[in-house]
Amino acid sequence: MYLERIRKPNDIQKISPKNYKVLAREIRDFLIESVSRTGGHLSSNLGAVELTMAIHLSFDLMKDKVIWDVGHQSYTHKLLTGRREGFNSLRSFGGMSGFPKRAESPCDAFDTGHSSTSISAGVGMAQARDLKGEDYHVVSVIGDGALTGGLAFEALNNVSAVKGNFIIVLNDNKMSISENVGGISNLLGKMRTSKIYTGIKESITGNLKRLPSGEDIHDVISNAKDSIKQLVVRDGMMFEDMDITYLGPFDGHNINQLLKAFRTAKQAKGPVLLHVLTKKGKGYPLAEANPGRFHGIDPFDPATGKLLKKEENATYTKLFSDCMVQLGKQKSNVVAITAAMTDGTGLSRFARHFPERLFDVGIAEAHAVTFAAGLAVAGMKPYVAIYSSFLQRAYDSILHDVCMQKLPVTFAVDRAGIVGKDGETHQGIFDLSYLTSIPNLTVMAPKNAYEFAQMFLFSASFDGPLAIRYPRGEAILDYKSYNSKIIYGKAEVMLQSDDHTIALVAIGSMTKTAMNVAKRLEQDGINATVINLRFAKPLDLECIRSLKNYKNIFTLEENVKTGGIGEQIATCLLEQRSRAKVRIFAVPDRFIPHGCVDVLMRELGLDPDHIYEEAVKAVKGSKTDHE
Amino acid sequence: MYLERIRKPNDIQKISPKNYKVLAREIRDFLIESVSRTGGHLSSNLGAVELTMAIHLSFDLMKDKVIWDVGHQSYTHKLLTGRREGFNSLRSFGGMSGFPKRAESPCDAFDTGHSSTSISAGVGMAQARDLKGEDYHVVSVIGDGALTGGLAFEALNNVSAVKGNFIIVLNDNKMSISENVGGISNLLGKMRTSKIYTGIKESITGNLKRLPSGEDIHDVISNAKDSIKQLVVRDGMMFEDMDITYLGPFDGHNINQLLKAFRTAKQAKGPVLLHVLTKKGKGYPLAEANPGRFHGIDPFDPATGKLLKKEENATYTKLFSDCMVQLGKQKSNVVAITAAMTDGTGLSRFARHFPERLFDVGIAEAHAVTFAAGLAVAGMKPYVAIYSSFLQRAYDSILHDVCMQKLPVTFAVDRAGIVGKDGETHQGIFDLSYLTSIPNLTVMAPKNAYEFAQMFLFSASFDGPLAIRYPRGEAILDYKSYNSKIIYGKAEVMLQSDDHTIALVAIGSMTKTAMNVAKRLEQDGINATVINLRFAKPLDLECIRSLKNYKNIFTLEENVKTGGIGEQIATCLLEQRSRAKVRIFAVPDRFIPHGCVDVLMRELGLDPDHIYEEAVKAVKGSKTDHE
Repeated sequence: MYLERIRKPNDIQKISPKNYKVLAREIRDFLIESVSRTGGHLSSNLGAVELTMAIHLSFDLMKDKVIWDVGHQSYTHKLLTGRREGFNSLRSFGGMSGFPKRAESPCDAFDTGHSSTSISAGVGMAQARDLKGEDYHVVSVIGDGALTGGLAFEALNNVSAVKGNFIIVLNDNKMSISENVGGISNLLGKMRTSKIYTGIKESITGNLKRLPSGEDIHDVISNAKDSIKQLVVRDGMMFEDMDITYLGPFDGHNINQLLKAFRTAKQAKGPVLLHVLTKKGKGYPLAEANPGRFHGIDPFDPATGKLLKKEENATYTKLFSDCMVQLGKQKSNVVAITAAMTDGTGLSRFARHFPERLFDVGIAEAHAVTFAAGLAVAGMKPYVAIYSSFLQRAYDSILHDVCMQKLPVTFAVDRAGIVGKDGETHQGIFDLSYLTSIPNLTVMAPKNAYEFAQMFLFSASFDGPLAIRYPRGEAILDYKSYNSKIIYGKAEVMLQSDDHTIALVAIGSMTKTAMNVAKRLEQDGINATVINLRFAKPLDLECIRSLKNYKNIFTLEENVKTGGIGEQIATCLLEQRSRAKVRIFAVPDRFIPHGCVDVLMRELGLDPDHIYEEAVKAVKGSKTDHE
Repeated sequence: MYLERIRKPNDIQKISPKNYKVLAREIRDFLIESVSRTGGHLSSNLGAVELTMAIHLSFDLMKDKVIWDVGHQSYTHKLLTGRREGFNSLRSFGGMSGFPKRAESPCDAFDTGHSSTSISAGVGMAQARDLKGEDYHVVSVIGDGALTGGLAFEALNNVSAVKGNFIIVLNDNKMSISENVGGISNLLGKMRTSKIYTGIKESITGNLKRLPSGEDIHDVISNAKDSIKQLVVRDGMMFEDMDITYLGPFDGHNINQLLKAFRTAKQAKGPVLLHVLTKKGKGYPLAEANPGRFHGIDPFDPATGKLLKKEENATYTKLFSDCMVQLGKQKSNVVAITAAMTDGTGLSRFARHFPERLFDVGIAEAHAVTFAAGLAVAGMKPYVAIYSSFLQRAYDSILHDVCMQKLPVTFAVDRAGIVGKDGETHQGIFDLSYLTSIPNLTVMAPKNAYEFAQMFLFSASFDGPLAIRYPRGEAILDYKSYNSKIIYGKAEVMLQSDDHTIALVAIGSMTKTAMNVAKRLEQDGINATVINLRFAKPLDLECIRSLKNYKNIFTLEENVKTGGIGEQIATCLLEQRSRAKVRIFAVPDRFIPHGCVDVLMRELGLDPDHIYEEAVKAVKGSKTDHE
């Protein structure tokens, strides 16, 4: 095994070129076996094996900076920097992250997770290097999907300012998580069809090596009269016009070709874009045939690709899928918008039923929202489905384009709360804070599957900006009988105690926890009141004020404490001069790493056991107060 | 006066073509005279007179939808839709807005204020129109500056999906507020130099008229063998490659040429981009010579261009300018980043002293922040200067790229709080909410000019993400003697009363208000404690807990209540089981329109008079409680 010889950064450089193919196969076998056990991202990693090897063979990873856009394609990079053992604990609490982490290795130059950041960060590093007169390479590896994000474009617009070497590797697999859409995709399509890098370009790159500066290279290329050269250059016109030297396209699974390409790119002064064609899932036929299914996957049987454990109940995402088809049938002006996640957000069925009413805008969350505002102004009823942590990228569009104009756009905020194994970049723990502070916006969260459906039914006739947040994973099926009608701004009293000892005020997923705690307290002879808020905004102040004379009030939310509903409830109670002892159970003021949701919830003190114990203590304490 | 004949939408269509030039002159004279009295945006409006006239001559403004990107160039549009009288109350409270407002006119299709939204909104409207089978034109007017915003690019990537007519007018004046930078600007530069629209293009547009669909047009153009046609098409290559028909460039001050261009563009099916060259400040020599100075301007003498009233004290922006030059001299790794507002944010002097350390990234706030993260990772000390309401666009970059990695990026958050005449899109009233909920971020606000300087001195040696927020306008020079050293997370006790009647806890600009109120209370024999928080995050909980036994606690902030410091202080007090009567003085949960800052502060109940009265009532009330 050549892979076993790689124990630390740059060890790959000791492997003989004739064994590269064998090593690539070993890496793929390792990844398939390892991810089949732990779960994780597979397709994008299999597609980037040779590319990552070529980068590690071409650069000094202890000195040069490589930035992996999104970062879920960094498994081979982790293997080649001595983190093989880490794969046993991949994405589990305290174990290795599925994304690059500066805290994990000096070879991880920049933490990533959200899309389209790598060029911005790379331009920053390259400028810093040049200002300090230092000498290293900066390489930003970005997918063609991530290129549809506006941030990547804002960065491309700035790379011409870099005077030293700066390499952008465009890892072009024609996909985001699903297939790419839009003008940029068309444009890249035209570039892809040009002849793969051959002898023709040698003459250009031959000149490249002898010339001191990127500008001169550009001149040489531009002035060339050979029509074939013209054709080649023309293919990268958009980049060339932005003063970025375009090289490519290259076969991303041919290591020798990639090594040549990097040798050329390293010589250039100024920005160079290397266009590399790869195949998602490469080398694992099941993933090649269905890269979306193996994008991020739970443990599976490598022989069949089947999941080892099936989800028992429907997920909220599945419920959303059903709701949208239903809404689409009811109202012809219902349209759905996704930012390159038709599958992930559950919109595939809607897309099949109403293909002309599903808009996949690419990885472009801000545009998704402002586009929805335009649709709404012109009489449509748009549903924008974006995960909580990605919706952060559209904050101003929500505020400035939708809410300021009070437009009837509904946000389906999936993956709200602790998401688990994807870790800190993906936790949906800020939306209650960043959404409830926006005027004109209504924010809801369901306690279970049935309420979820009721809320989407409510949304259909609601005429204003509305966000419905719900967690990752299986929908809660308990408490079916608690089905009072949804009324704007009204909470649901699930349990009403008359002894005013303790009230548990919960939002969304935490309602189940509150009911669980109340049940246990009941066995101790303590009758708790349980409120299911339903609306995070507007809060049911009347209901909260009615709790004024309680001895203890616990608020429960899967969101950071600052700006969350706990603080708003506390404020309301204080304004009422309540003497209640209020405890806010919320996510503490720090980023939350990866791990199983259950494990993380315990770590955060948001599990039923802990809250029950605190409730018992509080109730005992308040009795002592009185004695 | 032809202008007087225009009293309602489409009235311009009654004006004879031979009088267009006279009308344009009248409009310019009106704008110069009017803005010189009221203040407002001038340069961009003078540049868009003929373009706006051509749009009003070519479209039915009661039916077709025109979206003005940013919107500060919409004065001529307001004039031509019967709002001439409105200019007397331009940007004053209750008067006409300086931006398009759907509430103001049926001819304002979409509210704008922030940059780069118009194509997204336009695509939404065009798609809605086509889905509903309706028949009207959608026109998005966007500047070349706004085109550097990622949102515009995300939208461009999606326009090819529009099957019906959709016209993008690229109003190319080579400027944002200052001169444009970057690859896109270079690219447009190349397009500009091609021959202005002449007979050559007639043949193409001749074909255009006879062809039913945009795709066919594209084919005709692409297949044309005439090398001149090839050249013309090549100029718009980036747009053509994204399946957008490119027409231009046109002289934006030649109405007849513009009318022809629109006639052509209206025939096309699918998206068309009209490249129009204009000159900022056109027709007013002072503004032509110095468009930046007349971008947004206070009342001035039209003959000399001099301001009628000079600011007496230095603004915070000016102080920031001084601080940055000082920091730049002290530390060679200090760099500054602006999103196309070198002047507005006060970075011009820094740019002159350290040209290589000033980065103007274009209108690209998210990139500005992620780029700064890259600079910081590589050892620089970046200062990102962005107005509070524009920084909303970089929320995820602050959270995901800077704070998650604890990088030492300092945010200079100018225009925080009520900004006044620019109105609801520009009020900086959310930053305390959206910033304090982000882990690892420190948030400060100075009470006066001296503390401002101290805070920037503090920032120089602070090793982590830091935001300093400060308001528009003149810096406060009072309270110079309150100059205790700035200590991380510590508030400043400005007045300490022993009788625990009332404490006023303020942040930033509201400290002056608190002191003013305390002084008046003192005259009534009431001794108030005044706390200047200095840090909005972390809050000085020790200091706040020390107020636990006060009868009344008022918190004062120029930020929305939800998620602001008042709620956080209330929560801390409630957790201490304080019996204090807490009143939160903050911006209420709605968008705040335009008007003078003083007038708005009174409207919001944030003026010293109101707070003083409430304090007197509260103190009297608490006395009664005890009697």
